[in-house]
Amino acid sequence: MEIDRVIRVDMTAKTITEETAPASWRLLGGRALTAQLLLDETDPRCHPLSREAKLFIVPGLLGGTAVTTSGRTSFGFKSPLTGGTKESNSGGQLGHRLARLGIKAIIIDGASDDGWYRLDIDQHGVRLSRADDLAGRSNYDLHRELVGEALASRAAATIGPAGEHRLAGASVAITDPEGRPTRHAARGGPGAVMGAKGLKAIIVDDTGAPRIVPSEHPDEYRQEVVKFSKMILEDPRTHNLSKTGTAGVIKFVNRDNIQSMPTRNHRHGTWSLADTISGQHIDELGQTRGGKMLPCMAGCIIKCAILFNDEAGNHVTTALEFETIALLGSNCEIGPADAVAQLDHMCDDIGLDTIELGNAVGVAMEAGVLPWGDWEGTKKLLEEVRSGTPLGRIIGNGAAHVAKTFGIDRVPVVKGQGLPAWEPRTLKGMGLTYATSPQGADHTAGMVTARGATAETLVKQSRHEQLVMMAIDSAGVCQFSNALPGDIAQFVGRRFGVDWDDEAVLAMARAGIKAEREFNRRAGFGKGDDRLPQWMLDEPLPLPDGPAVFDIDDSLIDAVWGDL
Amino acid sequence: MEIDRVIRVDMTAKTITEETAPASWRLLGGRALTAQLLLDETDPRCHPLSREAKLFIVPGLLGGTAVTTSGRTSFGFKSPLTGGTKESNSGGQLGHRLARLGIKAIIIDGASDDGWYRLDIDQHGVRLSRADDLAGRSNYDLHRELVGEALASRAAATIGPAGEHRLAGASVAITDPEGRPTRHAARGGPGAVMGAKGLKAIIVDDTGAPRIVPSEHPDEYRQEVVKFSKMILEDPRTHNLSKTGTAGVIKFVNRDNIQSMPTRNHRHGTWSLADTISGQHIDELGQTRGGKMLPCMAGCIIKCAILFNDEAGNHVTTALEFETIALLGSNCEIGPADAVAQLDHMCDDIGLDTIELGNAVGVAMEAGVLPWGDWEGTKKLLEEVRSGTPLGRIIGNGAAHVAKTFGIDRVPVVKGQGLPAWEPRTLKGMGLTYATSPQGADHTAGMVTARGATAETLVKQSRHEQLVMMAIDSAGVCQFSNALPGDIAQFVGRRFGVDWDDEAVLAMARAGIKAEREFNRRAGFGKGDDRLPQWMLDEPLPLPDGPAVFDIDDSLIDAVWGDL
Repeated sequence: MEIDRVIRVDMTAKTITEETAPASWRLLGGRALTAQLLLDETDPRCHPLSREAKLFIVPGLLGGTAVTTSGRTSFGFKSPLTGGTKESNSGGQLGHRLARLGIKAIIIDGASDDGWYRLDIDQHGVRLSRADDLAGRSNYDLHRELVGEALASRAAATIGPAGEHRLAGASVAITDPEGRPTRHAARGGPGAVMGAKGLKAIIVDDTGAPRIVPSEHPDEYRQEVVKFSKMILEDPRTHNLSKTGTAGVIKFVNRDNIQSMPTRNHRHGTWSLADTISGQHIDELGQTRGGKMLPCMAGCIIKCAILFNDEAGNHVTTALEFETIALLGSNCEIGPADAVAQLDHMCDDIGLDTIELGNAVGVAMEAGVLPWGDWEGTKKLLEEVRSGTPLGRIIGNGAAHVAKTFGIDRVPVVKGQGLPAWEPRTLKGMGLTYATSPQGADHTAGMVTARGATAETLVKQSRHEQLVMMAIDSAGVCQFSNALPGDIAQFVGRRFGVDWDDEAVLAMARAGIKAEREFNRRAGFGKGDDRLPQWMLDEPLPLPDGPAVFDIDDSLIDAVWGDL
Repeated sequence: MEIDRVIRVDMTAKTITEETAPASWRLLGGRALTAQLLLDETDPRCHPLSREAKLFIVPGLLGGTAVTTSGRTSFGFKSPLTGGTKESNSGGQLGHRLARLGIKAIIIDGASDDGWYRLDIDQHGVRLSRADDLAGRSNYDLHRELVGEALASRAAATIGPAGEHRLAGASVAITDPEGRPTRHAARGGPGAVMGAKGLKAIIVDDTGAPRIVPSEHPDEYRQEVVKFSKMILEDPRTHNLSKTGTAGVIKFVNRDNIQSMPTRNHRHGTWSLADTISGQHIDELGQTRGGKMLPCMAGCIIKCAILFNDEAGNHVTTALEFETIALLGSNCEIGPADAVAQLDHMCDDIGLDTIELGNAVGVAMEAGVLPWGDWEGTKKLLEEVRSGTPLGRIIGNGAAHVAKTFGIDRVPVVKGQGLPAWEPRTLKGMGLTYATSPQGADHTAGMVTARGATAETLVKQSRHEQLVMMAIDSAGVCQFSNALPGDIAQFVGRRFGVDWDDEAVLAMARAGIKAEREFNRRAGFGKGDDRLPQWMLDEPLPLPDGPAVFDIDDSLIDAVWGDL
């Protein structure tokens, strides 16, 4: 089947129109498509929360297929956090369902003047209706009502109170396979954009929709899918992820010679209590509490999502990630794991990006709003975000906003977006990616954790990894599949009956990055925006072999995209 | 005498060093000098509130002389409001005193780690000392204590609580001739920068210092000074200013064919109650209340500052300006004049830019934080700014910050700085100046109020007026002197014994603007920053001859500085 339905929702007029995607979109999906749509259809100078700003919701090129992890969804928009291009990418049950309903893109335009709406999509059609009963409600409650027991066919994408408040740290929550709102298109404020449009929830039911299988050589295709899965299962990286999730790296990155465990608003790279929030410790706790490792979508064989229960065996959170633990944990000197897990639950429930919020709370602690390590105070802050109090709005708008509010000069952001945990002073390739990604500071934009390489080598690696990640995000697969351009070429080729190779995949990726950079340029970004905060160049971390700052020359930073 | 003392204050080390200004600074003063110093001595990428960010305090080239209005002072810094170059310019008693003490520049560097300090400057020297007793105090109280009855010799530059809180809307208050803190280096957050350094007050006493008279042809010079004053006094513009101050324009700009009285967060250009806040009405009130027109500095013959008393004849505020009245008044639908005068007093006392605060409160009203016209609510908000509550910090950080906090998309700023009253949709030359001034939206950067001219003509006018204002701000005279480049050339020539003409003045101005634009470029600004907010291009004002939006083409905006 073709995936070519383009559903346009005008939230001002409350109308839905459907069109067939032009042929030129056929081999675009996920991030590559949202990047192009954003450039083509959104004025780069418009306010991200204005009527003119559009929200694009797009499954990956491989969405709906049996390729493992291929059901991710891209949310494209002008970011209220960075003011630039944004693709916020999420797992969960949404992407496969959209694709199986033949949906190439949902495009939300305009803004409601008369309260909150919901969008229902199923085999019978697409309906926009009032949702006053959903207003003010948080995500766990919402997904229980909107998805309920229909785990096999339904998925919701909702905003919590943070999105209703139009906060730049607001996420869109996507249903996980157990019906919980634990997967998020989190970064850059998609929840704020959806909130500004007056859209509280999108509910997709793919009952009756077919699995997507290529019409040509379906058996060969199935064999390749199985082979790819086997390869992933044999990869030792998968073993680690399947046992301790992304949190398994904590013991490793907290070491003296890595120092990539942000502590005290990124002042230190190690935390004395890091073991209490490590994946290994969480794994131990889980053994007596019914903890388990879950997939974030049907068909994922990696299962990196930690389900975390409390001492009584009651569910606290799912998908307790390294980044969440590092930013809401060590960066705020908050532990042990139980404390961080509760904060993660609250962020999921309120609809907040945990990376941005961890940075925001860290800056608030630096400003003296609350003491370092104050878990109870942080919970109160998050409740203020939920209520939309002035202080809650300050925090929910992210780290740069908190810093501005309280006059703090150590601002942990690039292009306005809070820093992930991976430390640019010791893992300088990550600094190159943070600086040059059109997305702002984003570890998923291109992981380069090599040490000891020359700056010139890191420049090439960052560029290459950013292109590969653009390809992965466009295919709609998970980075933990470790799919190479060749894998993507093969599956896209078979799926669409085209002859793709590595170069075709990288060409698509280059075009995607070009579109993102062009949008940023038109929005007013320049080379000065491709920089880490100055304090990362001035404040060293004490590595065993000497003090480490981010010291890659500006000219090399600019060389990452120099000849794109 | 030469004015060549450069006083460097290191607030980290608590040391003061003095050096002689290099010869290359001799013919630089005021804004032209701060622009160059900022470019030469401050990393454009540093955080504006960091130790590395410097604050430059510089009298004009004609400071200390008898040329009327020539005692203005330039505060140069990287702006915490715009992130770019900033020169915030104030009248009051400071500039003449600095010049008469031979001071070319005070340069404040570093930041105190151990509380608040004061800087005392007089004929005996320069002293930095602890000022814990001044901490937390507001400007009226401070100037009473620091200047007291020594009106003839002392002047203070202080920050109020807003500066202590490091808010981007915080001003530096300068003593007026009656000893009150009613003159402000207000725009762009100089108070926040001074606050970040831990400097609460600068107190200058010029007892024993000479008036500055050129050694060559002093009599001719005096005659020219008198002639210049006479010309000003004969100018009808001066007559208006001397009677109703800048507030005299309100009746004029509130008319249907001008619509330059911002109302409801710049949604309308006229306000039905504008007469209650007009200069003419204030003049009438003053006649029974002891109102009067005052100079802002000794030797000013224009006297445009409205002293406003309450019904009982008690002082409420001095220097109640058009911009203050428009932004805190009509823009928030607040009146009558008594109400606005009290808000002005509070801003002076707390140390806040009235333009920024009027815009900020307007956005807060748009967000529903308080109703339109809610004077009591606005007073409470200002008290929250004084106290530094979360809501107070939101407001005190300016209009863009309020908009971000509450998810409002009608943001009345250029380069992050709140719009003055002059309306770009009906007075499009003002729009060109707002868009292209390196300072952000700033009416004093180049007034172009012509109507009916072609866009090409307005481009030339904006450029020329911006150069003239750079010259005026560098000479240190008031724009209401209507000094032309020829006047400046003559006085600078006589003062410094050089042969200056119009072209020399404009060359200095071009160099100054170039330095400002270069700083911004290095700070990451591009063409996209030289733009008005999108809604001013989309939302028309209903002029009698048709709807008016700001519709000057981007290419013409870029032509303002095209070949600089």
